[in-house]
Amino acid sequence: MNTIKGVPISSGIAIGKVYLKKAVSEEITFTKAESKDEEKKRFQASRELAVKQVEEIYQEMLHSKGEQEASIFLAHIEMLNDTEFVKGVESVLEESGCTSEWAVKTVRDNFVKIFEAMDDEYMRERAMDIKDISGRVIRILKGDVNAGSLKLTEPSIMISDDLAPSDTAQMKPELVLGIINETGGPTSHAAIIARMLGIPFCICPRITSLVNNGQLLAFDGEEGNIELEVTEEILEDYREKQETFRQKKLRLEKLKGTKSITKDGYEVLLAGNIGAPEDADKVQQQDGQSIGLFRTEFLYMNREDSPTEEEQFAAYKETAEKMQGRPVVIRTLDIGGDKEVDYLRIPKEENPFLGYRAIRLCLDRVPFWKVQLRALLRASEFGNIHIMFPMIVSIEELVQAKQILEEVKGELRREGAAFNESVPVGMMMETPAAALMADVFAKEVDFFSIGTNDLIQYTMAVDRMNGKVAHLYSQYDPAVLRLVKKIVDSAHENGIWAGICGEAAADKALLPIWVGLGLDELSMSPVSILPIREQIQGLSKADCENLVKKIFLLRTGNEIEEALKHCR
Amino acid sequence: MNTIKGVPISSGIAIGKVYLKKAVSEEITFTKAESKDEEKKRFQASRELAVKQVEEIYQEMLHSKGEQEASIFLAHIEMLNDTEFVKGVESVLEESGCTSEWAVKTVRDNFVKIFEAMDDEYMRERAMDIKDISGRVIRILKGDVNAGSLKLTEPSIMISDDLAPSDTAQMKPELVLGIINETGGPTSHAAIIARMLGIPFCICPRITSLVNNGQLLAFDGEEGNIELEVTEEILEDYREKQETFRQKKLRLEKLKGTKSITKDGYEVLLAGNIGAPEDADKVQQQDGQSIGLFRTEFLYMNREDSPTEEEQFAAYKETAEKMQGRPVVIRTLDIGGDKEVDYLRIPKEENPFLGYRAIRLCLDRVPFWKVQLRALLRASEFGNIHIMFPMIVSIEELVQAKQILEEVKGELRREGAAFNESVPVGMMMETPAAALMADVFAKEVDFFSIGTNDLIQYTMAVDRMNGKVAHLYSQYDPAVLRLVKKIVDSAHENGIWAGICGEAAADKALLPIWVGLGLDELSMSPVSILPIREQIQGLSKADCENLVKKIFLLRTGNEIEEALKHCR
Repeated sequence: MNTIKGVPISSGIAIGKVYLKKAVSEEITFTKAESKDEEKKRFQASRELAVKQVEEIYQEMLHSKGEQEASIFLAHIEMLNDTEFVKGVESVLEESGCTSEWAVKTVRDNFVKIFEAMDDEYMRERAMDIKDISGRVIRILKGDVNAGSLKLTEPSIMISDDLAPSDTAQMKPELVLGIINETGGPTSHAAIIARMLGIPFCICPRITSLVNNGQLLAFDGEEGNIELEVTEEILEDYREKQETFRQKKLRLEKLKGTKSITKDGYEVLLAGNIGAPEDADKVQQQDGQSIGLFRTEFLYMNREDSPTEEEQFAAYKETAEKMQGRPVVIRTLDIGGDKEVDYLRIPKEENPFLGYRAIRLCLDRVPFWKVQLRALLRASEFGNIHIMFPMIVSIEELVQAKQILEEVKGELRREGAAFNESVPVGMMMETPAAALMADVFAKEVDFFSIGTNDLIQYTMAVDRMNGKVAHLYSQYDPAVLRLVKKIVDSAHENGIWAGICGEAAADKALLPIWVGLGLDELSMSPVSILPIREQIQGLSKADCENLVKKIFLLRTGNEIEEALKHCR
Repeated sequence: MNTIKGVPISSGIAIGKVYLKKAVSEEITFTKAESKDEEKKRFQASRELAVKQVEEIYQEMLHSKGEQEASIFLAHIEMLNDTEFVKGVESVLEESGCTSEWAVKTVRDNFVKIFEAMDDEYMRERAMDIKDISGRVIRILKGDVNAGSLKLTEPSIMISDDLAPSDTAQMKPELVLGIINETGGPTSHAAIIARMLGIPFCICPRITSLVNNGQLLAFDGEEGNIELEVTEEILEDYREKQETFRQKKLRLEKLKGTKSITKDGYEVLLAGNIGAPEDADKVQQQDGQSIGLFRTEFLYMNREDSPTEEEQFAAYKETAEKMQGRPVVIRTLDIGGDKEVDYLRIPKEENPFLGYRAIRLCLDRVPFWKVQLRALLRASEFGNIHIMFPMIVSIEELVQAKQILEEVKGELRREGAAFNESVPVGMMMETPAAALMADVFAKEVDFFSIGTNDLIQYTMAVDRMNGKVAHLYSQYDPAVLRLVKKIVDSAHENGIWAGICGEAAADKALLPIWVGLGLDELSMSPVSILPIREQIQGLSKADCENLVKKIFLLRTGNEIEEALKHCR
């Protein structure tokens, strides 16, 4: 069998002919230009043509796909007009007397090196944008004035060594059966657009050297399997998969507007996790009923200094308004640990996961934290905002946090600013200490949201990023499930609700356990909402409760995982 | 009030005249020697005299204080004869043509720099030994042939900027009322000897510039308070303290041979924590009933490679024999985390406390671990050895560890080696996962020993070495106490015993809680055994149980700490 494994990025099944797109050879050698001035004019002309081309793509995108998808091309235009880029090329031209091709290449390589060295996936992806615009200018310089347009004439699987965002944007979706790219990641533009358009997408290094233009290929964008040789049998198999996938999509589509309710009438609120106001659209597209976790740290990352109160207020307000009165649980800043922000100057720690992070940092830097609380409270006037504190381990911390919130309310009152006086306040349940004392905490908050990732990490004393011990990290571990039960029971005994916002919320094998334990809310990546709703509609609460009883007799995470596999 | 705070090292109250010992000025300037050969001879003569002096000290120590205390001077003799030292000095003499004083200083500074840069307290302390022997040679070179003898003629408090081990060794204990030193730590030779001899000892930087020779001074080696000005009132106060201390010592002395039993007949086994076979003597001196924790990692530290099976066997056998049939709980290797061992080549980790350590490393390096298990089993023939596994989080790990132990038993059987077939096997309870599943674990082991330090650390998600969050680490936290209760109850329901071997075992405020919860064993630093026995004899189990009920209603570590303070 000639099957290789790729990294799945956008689900779906693709079967079709390969359209191989290797980047136009950009081999450039240092060549002296005849006249510096002429060369500068040549560069400007090419650059202007590139801007014009990208403006065309932008307009096309704006009409066909909307503002958000088109916005990347505004960014490209800005890059092409960017002083650092233009002056950079001109000064190379001036100093070395080389051709424009060489000068653009030099400046491009510099930028790419800087972006790729950044310890941040988003910024690394920006290196691709630089490559994209520079490639366009170079191709124009080389005489390919119609630079980089895709020439798909029949439905094909597009395989490329370095798919540029403008390539993806220009694609006629009806002609693109699937995409396999050698580089990139789940947050690249190509990936985002592919998911948006429902085009299957995998990443697979060296794929361009493994396939030929025009050959038949099949791949699975959910599993990551790529079939280099499509036998009759494989073709049959993939057609079946394709049909199953198509029907599932239709089925899920039909679930929009229905409730996430078991056969015997137990309803679970299915919410979405977001990192920015615009993600609320995705939650709504997937018919999510609320936002269970707004990770505000993303507002603080990738910038030179903290977001202002107004910036934050705008973000929270926008989200609250988008959700039109449905709950928006906003977690206060959870920075530190593995999430670094230079301008906060957090000292290097021996064990950052056991260190100065989240509420610990905020309680230590009250004036800084109050900016966020002010923004949150002011935004609470525009929708159903819930405030949630992360990483609480003791009642003292919770009391202190609530007290600071009250102080901020007082300030706002004195200023005459409007806010929701009874904004609900909850806490993450993500430390063993908090979980063990859930009965006490339940008397002090309006809701619990279980952060399974950290809760497992601390309970098992395992850094799951550490390959040497990651095997000990298990969402099925009975100790963790006991803590979840303790949390849910304590919440209900005290008349508050309990949800999960960790990755385990969307774990299909665990879903019957969550229903059986009586979780009120599950918050997840928006794309998981409809599949989980479908599964809930097939469950019975009574059966789930029986399953919980059986599962709680088992002794290990592996035994539980095994048992859950067999009961599906 | 002229009170300053020192670091307490050896308890007791000292009142007396100051004997100020500042190191002989070792100001040495670079001077050309007249003849290289003459200078080499001069160095050799001084070095030989130094060896002779240290040999005398060694002999004196051997007779007055025994082999162990004297051994440091054998090490000094070795250093003085060490090729690297001698050749080092000779090559400086040869190359620079300087005087021997300068050459010794140069080599000394080099060595000291290397040792002090090491990330290991033991090795840093060795820098002091180098200073000691080099200082002696330099003083002899300068004509002070009776180098470095102490000239105490009346009982005094010895205050020094850099007390050399040979100084401590030469002290006539009856003339030394107390010691305050500017440098050093609890594992320095001076500290060890002071504790052995019962001499009060503090560390206090810059003390030599704060006192005058001959002035009256008082200090408390338990609290670290140093009175620079001894008024009539302070004198009275310290005499009273001295008398209290003396009576306490007498009282504790009388407790030897009695049981650690409450007024209403509940007996707790008081055990000692040790790091080497010779520490068993200290446990016996303090009338400890068993060894509750032998930290075997010390056998692996400060060496070039792993200890052999024979070396380990000898250490375990010696300990077992010393304890004459009383239990010796030996914890298998707990390395990693904060304890580094170069030759094990443990990769650098982001969060070592949540990483590759203890049983995780041993289960991953089975042939390496089997060496220890073989040694342990073979030694089990010579006493009452218990084997204990650290850092267990899942039944799978425990089952795997026990299986490897069985394999080793099989190997030994085939070799015809003798061992205790039914050697008791237990586990540390130091992760929330294990504690939460104690009812399941209790069916698989013969005993539990609670490692409070790590258990608190993981439950509270706090690295207590991290000053930014150390305030969250509390032995009084109710979540931790709930886990301890769960562990003890699970043990007793399954007919096994449960002890504590973390620092909290000797916490006087918590002792009534441990008695109330029904802990069977408390293992601690040997010096704590008699004070804790005294306290137990004053308690009633029934009262302690009532106290537990009250304490378990409280919500925070601070509330509990406060309540326990008031009930003493």
